[in-house]
Amino acid sequence: MNSNSSNVMALTSTTSNKKETVCIFGTGDFGRALAYKMIQSGYSVVFGSRQTQISSLIPKGAEVLSHTEAAQKAPIIFIAIPRQHYNFLLPLAEVLHGKVLVDVSNNLKLNQYSQSNAEYLAQLIPGARVVKAFNTVSAWALQSGTLDASRQVFVCGDDKKAKQMVMDIVRALGLTPLDQGSLLAAQEIENYPLQLFPMWKFPIFLSLGLTVFFFFYSLIRDVIYPYVNEKKDFSFFIAISIANRICPILALILLALVYLPGVLAAIIQLYRGTKYSRFPDWLDKWMLCRKQLGLVALAFAFLHVLYTLVLPIRYYVRWRVNGGVISQVLNNRTDPLNNTYAWLSDSYVALGILGFFLFVLLGITSLPSVSNSVNWREFRFVQSKLGYLTLILCTAHTLVYGGNRFLYASSYRWYLPNAYMLSLIIPCIVLVVKFVLVFPCLDKPLTRIRQGWERNPRYSE
Amino acid sequence: MNSNSSNVMALTSTTSNKKETVCIFGTGDFGRALAYKMIQSGYSVVFGSRQTQISSLIPKGAEVLSHTEAAQKAPIIFIAIPRQHYNFLLPLAEVLHGKVLVDVSNNLKLNQYSQSNAEYLAQLIPGARVVKAFNTVSAWALQSGTLDASRQVFVCGDDKKAKQMVMDIVRALGLTPLDQGSLLAAQEIENYPLQLFPMWKFPIFLSLGLTVFFFFYSLIRDVIYPYVNEKKDFSFFIAISIANRICPILALILLALVYLPGVLAAIIQLYRGTKYSRFPDWLDKWMLCRKQLGLVALAFAFLHVLYTLVLPIRYYVRWRVNGGVISQVLNNRTDPLNNTYAWLSDSYVALGILGFFLFVLLGITSLPSVSNSVNWREFRFVQSKLGYLTLILCTAHTLVYGGNRFLYASSYRWYLPNAYMLSLIIPCIVLVVKFVLVFPCLDKPLTRIRQGWERNPRYSE
Amino acid sequence: MNSNSSNVMALTSTTSNKKETVCIFGTGDFGRALAYKMIQSGYSVVFGSRQTQISSLIPKGAEVLSHTEAAQKAPIIFIAIPRQHYNFLLPLAEVLHGKVLVDVSNNLKLNQYSQSNAEYLAQLIPGARVVKAFNTVSAWALQSGTLDASRQVFVCGDDKKAKQMVMDIVRALGLTPLDQGSLLAAQEIENYPLQLFPMWKFPIFLSLGLTVFFFFYSLIRDVIYPYVNEKKDFSFFIAISIANRICPILALILLALVYLPGVLAAIIQLYRGTKYSRFPDWLDKWMLCRKQLGLVALAFAFLHVLYTLVLPIRYYVRWRVNGGVISQVLNNRTDPLNNTYAWLSDSYVALGILGFFLFVLLGITSLPSVSNSVNWREFRFVQSKLGYLTLILCTAHTLVYGGNRFLYASSYRWYLPNAYMLSLIIPCIVLVVKFVLVFPCLDKPLTRIRQGWERNPRYSE
Repeated sequence: MNSNSSNVMALTSTTSNKKETVCIFGTGDFGRALAYKMIQSGYSVVFGSRQTQISSLIPKGAEVLSHTEAAQKAPIIFIAIPRQHYNFLLPLAEVLHGKVLVDVSNNLKLNQYSQSNAEYLAQLIPGARVVKAFNTVSAWALQSGTLDASRQVFVCGDDKKAKQMVMDIVRALGLTPLDQGSLLAAQEIENYPLQLFPMWKFPIFLSLGLTVFFFFYSLIRDVIYPYVNEKKDFSFFIAISIANRICPILALILLALVYLPGVLAAIIQLYRGTKYSRFPDWLDKWMLCRKQLGLVALAFAFLHVLYTLVLPIRYYVRWRVNGGVISQVLNNRTDPLNNTYAWLSDSYVALGILGFFLFVLLGITSLPSVSNSVNWREFRFVQSKLGYLTLILCTAHTLVYGGNRFLYASSYRWYLPNAYMLSLIIPCIVLVVKFVLVFPCLDKPLTRIRQGWERNPRYSE
Repeated sequence: MNSNSSNVMALTSTTSNKKETVCIFGTGDFGRALAYKMIQSGYSVVFGSRQTQISSLIPKGAEVLSHTEAAQKAPIIFIAIPRQHYNFLLPLAEVLHGKVLVDVSNNLKLNQYSQSNAEYLAQLIPGARVVKAFNTVSAWALQSGTLDASRQVFVCGDDKKAKQMVMDIVRALGLTPLDQGSLLAAQEIENYPLQLFPMWKFPIFLSLGLTVFFFFYSLIRDVIYPYVNEKKDFSFFIAISIANRICPILALILLALVYLPGVLAAIIQLYRGTKYSRFPDWLDKWMLCRKQLGLVALAFAFLHVLYTLVLPIRYYVRWRVNGGVISQVLNNRTDPLNNTYAWLSDSYVALGILGFFLFVLLGITSLPSVSNSVNWREFRFVQSKLGYLTLILCTAHTLVYGGNRFLYASSYRWYLPNAYMLSLIIPCIVLVVKFVLVFPCLDKPLTRIRQGWERNPRYSE
Repeated sequence: MNSNSSNVMALTSTTSNKKETVCIFGTGDFGRALAYKMIQSGYSVVFGSRQTQISSLIPKGAEVLSHTEAAQKAPIIFIAIPRQHYNFLLPLAEVLHGKVLVDVSNNLKLNQYSQSNAEYLAQLIPGARVVKAFNTVSAWALQSGTLDASRQVFVCGDDKKAKQMVMDIVRALGLTPLDQGSLLAAQEIENYPLQLFPMWKFPIFLSLGLTVFFFFYSLIRDVIYPYVNEKKDFSFFIAISIANRICPILALILLALVYLPGVLAAIIQLYRGTKYSRFPDWLDKWMLCRKQLGLVALAFAFLHVLYTLVLPIRYYVRWRVNGGVISQVLNNRTDPLNNTYAWLSDSYVALGILGFFLFVLLGITSLPSVSNSVNWREFRFVQSKLGYLTLILCTAHTLVYGGNRFLYASSYRWYLPNAYMLSLIIPCIVLVVKFVLVFPCLDKPLTRIRQGWERNPRYSE
């Protein structure tokens, strides 16, 4: 490195050994926490406040001045006061001219105001360069250093240089800035911390709806029917037997719903002969929440496994098994080993175990840190190939469990088929269509379409 | 982009196509590994060493010169030699003037020296700009590229520009720099790699203590009592039966201890009428290790589930169940289905399953990569709402398991109540107090206090 | 911050409020997705295309010009066209002189060309500064924002400044650039997205081989032998019984293979008296895939747990247990509790549970996000200390399970010992050697060697 480059470095760095100064308007929780963290990271902090007396709560080393004085000391000012009080900045417009104003505010409700706080600020002080940032970070997390909940700081603003300055500070505090573009993104950034699992809403409501349906369906078949017909009280079935009927059904249906949109998309692409037409909106949305659908399905599968494994511990199951033994003994009869039934029972259980194992594997690879460390081909291999294998195993598990039961009239109560039969409809459709799609006569054109080929090209490039 | 900005870019970048040179003092393991990684990332490396002959261990492409010559070649010098040998730098003070010295050293014990190595170095060579960095990265990880253990590089130093130069190198090596402020942080950074789960110490020692207590408690009730009173040898209970008594008790107590400090904090805030007074130190510490407490509780819950599920496989359980059947048969008696008992048994198991399921969910969301990808509101929803639901379910599970047993004298042996009764004390207290706190007459003032309201404001802002 | 530093900042930033312009050659999937994301992040995008008419697919706000015009507008040009068409750039050589060309291309096969696409491009347009980047990011992920699969962007190039410019763009898009050094790394970067779990190949093929061997071994002993000798058809054993024999055997062997290379390395170091000689290549490779070996072992252990827990649900097991009860009753006999057997059965199960619990703990700490948040000492404590404890528990579990069975002739069928005995060979060797190595007479010199001491130093530093 020659001396020339050294000089350049000296120029680009900011005031070498002097600390950079930042200004914070507002001495509330967030302002103080921010100041605390910034001082720790080597910044010099000056508060702008109406009361310039130093309270014991102000972090050590920070100065407290009037708003005007404080603003003059630093090129960047954090506006850590609620939107309702932004008006008080109006008299300071001249001092704030050219300054970078960082809007860190949050609202209490989604879309509380038609205009985002940051845009409102930019409109109030047109001479300032407004940047939205830090609203997703909590005061408590800043101060205690337990930034578990989120290290990501969304940043947006119309001035590239101002944004860069803010992002440098974000990085200096050990956080990760994410540039979200112009100030238009402020509304979305302000809504972000108010969201409650938006991607999970559809999967969870869907599964709740299905749970209610299958609960009453099973209640009628397994509790009300025997009560009406045989005056037997099996109401305790609600706790485990019915729950263990609902869980596998939902796991299977939701898993099939993860793969259904992909199959639909393939059909649409084949029909249209191009991949350049947009899918219908519902299909796009469906495809984006496949991961969530799959994880909800995994949760039901996990519950199904637990409910199944406790079977031999249940008083009712023990009573029934013991009853069988006692009746054998009293009739002086010993049932021989039924080889076919042993095969059926074992293979049905084995299919379930393998299916659940792959399902857990899928779940683990969808953890953010795991999916970040595999490449795209590996991710698709796991989520597509292993995913379909899981679906096949789970469907087979249900089919073998049913065996030839759906032929017997006894499994229809009040003309209602066994609930698990209903659960097989969607998985079987998905698997059959997928099976058809892998035939070369369909797979070849589909692959070509996905590589950009068009049956009726609209314009030649 | 106009030509002007292009020129600026040319200025700011360093010597365009020429590689940047860094100097490393010391050809030990770490020095060589660092050189290897830097050469790979496009730097030119020169070693300063007493022996300037090139050994086969020096990475290809690195130069080896005398200390003085090497130091002159680069603006940044990595001091990869043990603290005991720092003295040899004294004669080089002039050459090192203005250079950035990176202290990468580690100690063998916590707080081995009263002054951190980096501060000692800065005092030895006052003209140099000392930066502490890279001490948390292992030579093996650098060389093999398997940076599993940690990508984070803590950086601290008094000179902002020097720190920036080091952080740029850290980033260029594919690692993540974390600015820890001034050189005062060096002591803490040097202690960091010597720590062994500091946050886990309290939870683990607490659970060890509780484990020992409940082990002997159960031993007396379940093994010694029947031996003394009935001359029955149940010593094999130690392996599973007693373990499966300790695990759920500890899981429940530790889970309750996760939520107890929050309840205490609320009471203190209500009593004081402000949130601006510091909590007592023990409460602060307790709140910071809640996550660890919860995970230890989850570990015990997981063991409890395994111990419970193997019940029907155990020889002793089979023997007892078979004995029951045989005695029924020999007495020519068939026990009818006890509906109440079926309800109790099933709902107790179902509550346990649901509680464990939510517990696992809590554990998954506390994985760093998962908690990083949710916003603050979502994190609190899971950890607070779902957490309390888990506590309620697990407490109910234990209550239903006990049933009305605590009324019977037979469950008191030598006046000792069943161990699970002791485990219910803390969870019930937490739940009752929490239930009281959600009443509007207490919840409203608490919410206002947490938003910054003070009953006796000390100073008006 | 004084006015001087402000001026410098103004200089270094690029054209303040004007957006930076980037050029993209090629309007295919990737080019469009990249443009979409860049416009979102505040860049101004201009396409270079043969057809300058704006199609509906071009993201809003992007301009489409001829290649020459587009190239003149921006200092950075993304070449989003297949390698086969790179020739068309030749006539543009003059316009491209000095420009940063970003090669984003991928191949269809590993090492498809002897020269990487980026090097080929650099050779075609010698005046341009070629940077390889973005090839690991998929168009779909860019456009939909679901960057689950990978946020890491590998960057390499011979020109440091050009690389820096590209890395700034990577960061602005919310991705993480990883500098891989000079353009020589392009081949590896181009191969990366085509790899399919390269580190997993050896563990998976090894376990497949072992699975096949133990499957046939168990088939002969457990199905064919009884069929030949006693004409009994136990073919249904394949589904669960044999699977549950293979799984624990493989889990134990693979776990032992995780710790065998460490033991071998210690022996080699002790024998050579230095740590500075390279290990044989196979040992190096083995050591690098220990994590994968361990995770495959965990998968088998997980399956073993599931297969074991379903035992009491199996029809065959119920039939056999019931048979035992019935025969007791018919013979008017009640077996007394066998205390020794109760001890053996319970402790064998308890050891298995504890071993599996620690195994799961090891698996969790090997998740990238968890291992990133612990320091090196903690990571080694878990992976080494807890790892050996797991191995000891699992080996003890298998030994106690076997009990003194290997003394009985009945456990040898056709002179074949029980399969689990074979599985004990490697773990016992590892544990015995490790036990010998912890004796001070061997541990002391080993520790000194690992700290750099050499028995026959080749050169004195």
